[in-house]
Amino acid sequence: MDETPGSVGTTSSLSLRLGQALFSSASLLFMSVGVEFYSYTAFCFLVTIMGLVIPWSCTLAMVDVYCIFVGCSLRLPGLMVIVVVGDMVLSILSLAAACASAGVIDLLFHLDGSYCPPKFCGRYQLSTSMAFLSWFLTASSSLFNLWHVASW
Amino acid sequence: MDETPGSVGTTSSLSLRLGQALFSSASLLFMSVGVEFYSYTAFCFLVTIMGLVIPWSCTLAMVDVYCIFVGCSLRLPGLMVIVVVGDMVLSILSLAAACASAGVIDLLFHLDGSYCPPKFCGRYQLSTSMAFLSWFLTASSSLFNLWHVASW
Repeated sequence: MDETPGSVGTTSSLSLRLGQALFSSASLLFMSVGVEFYSYTAFCFLVTIMGLVIPWSCTLAMVDVYCIFVGCSLRLPGLMVIVVVGDMVLSILSLAAACASAGVIDLLFHLDGSYCPPKFCGRYQLSTSMAFLSWFLTASSSLFNLWHVASW
Repeated sequence: MDETPGSVGTTSSLSLRLGQALFSSASLLFMSVGVEFYSYTAFCFLVTIMGLVIPWSCTLAMVDVYCIFVGCSLRLPGLMVIVVVGDMVLSILSLAAACASAGVIDLLFHLDGSYCPPKFCGRYQLSTSMAFLSWFLTASSSLFNLWHVASW
């Protein structure tokens, strides 16, 4: 089987999945621990999506580990289509959540200072940056897998 | 040449391009005519991106018209890579702009009413909806062209 770098079952895919899990966990923690995120819809959306990306990436990281050490053939069209569609949907939602949060943070900065105390605003910004990094890795996984499916 | 539906030079690609040009023009007009959009970064970003999507879609629509009526072979890897990358970048930017605007509109609704008079808010919402439709069509074009390139 001719392996596309970054497609399911390769070491590059494993590193992408670990990166996704790491950045989405960081984003979730920065946003949810000790910060009042629940008063803004965009931040609630970000937390929800990051909470979906973490189990998805961890599951696929385990599949990668299994394939690397035990060996498996993933030429099952049904399975690969689920992976590609799942990655694509999650990458679109991650980008949407990160951009909505970035727009809200920018507006909060420009409004009266009472809406955004420096301590909270810094956390929101960090969380959004992590979400952008997580999106970038999810989108890369999705494109590599799509390329792999299309080149069969 | 085996044509992928939706790839450059087909009638389905032409209809996608016309839809993109239509929705991005509508988004630009709803946002920029008679509304104070320039006080919000997200809305300025939306106007800029819609202003980039319009010439891109019109140019590719003309290429499609030429290919449909005169006939052309687009198996030039360099040209197709430019089209795929351009579509992908513009679809990411359209989604980013639409989501940032949606986040800002939602926040403006929840703040004191003086930030968002009903007349303005309705226009912002219409413009953002059109931007989402434009994003959807740009992303479809991008995926069809990527599939076409990958299946060579």
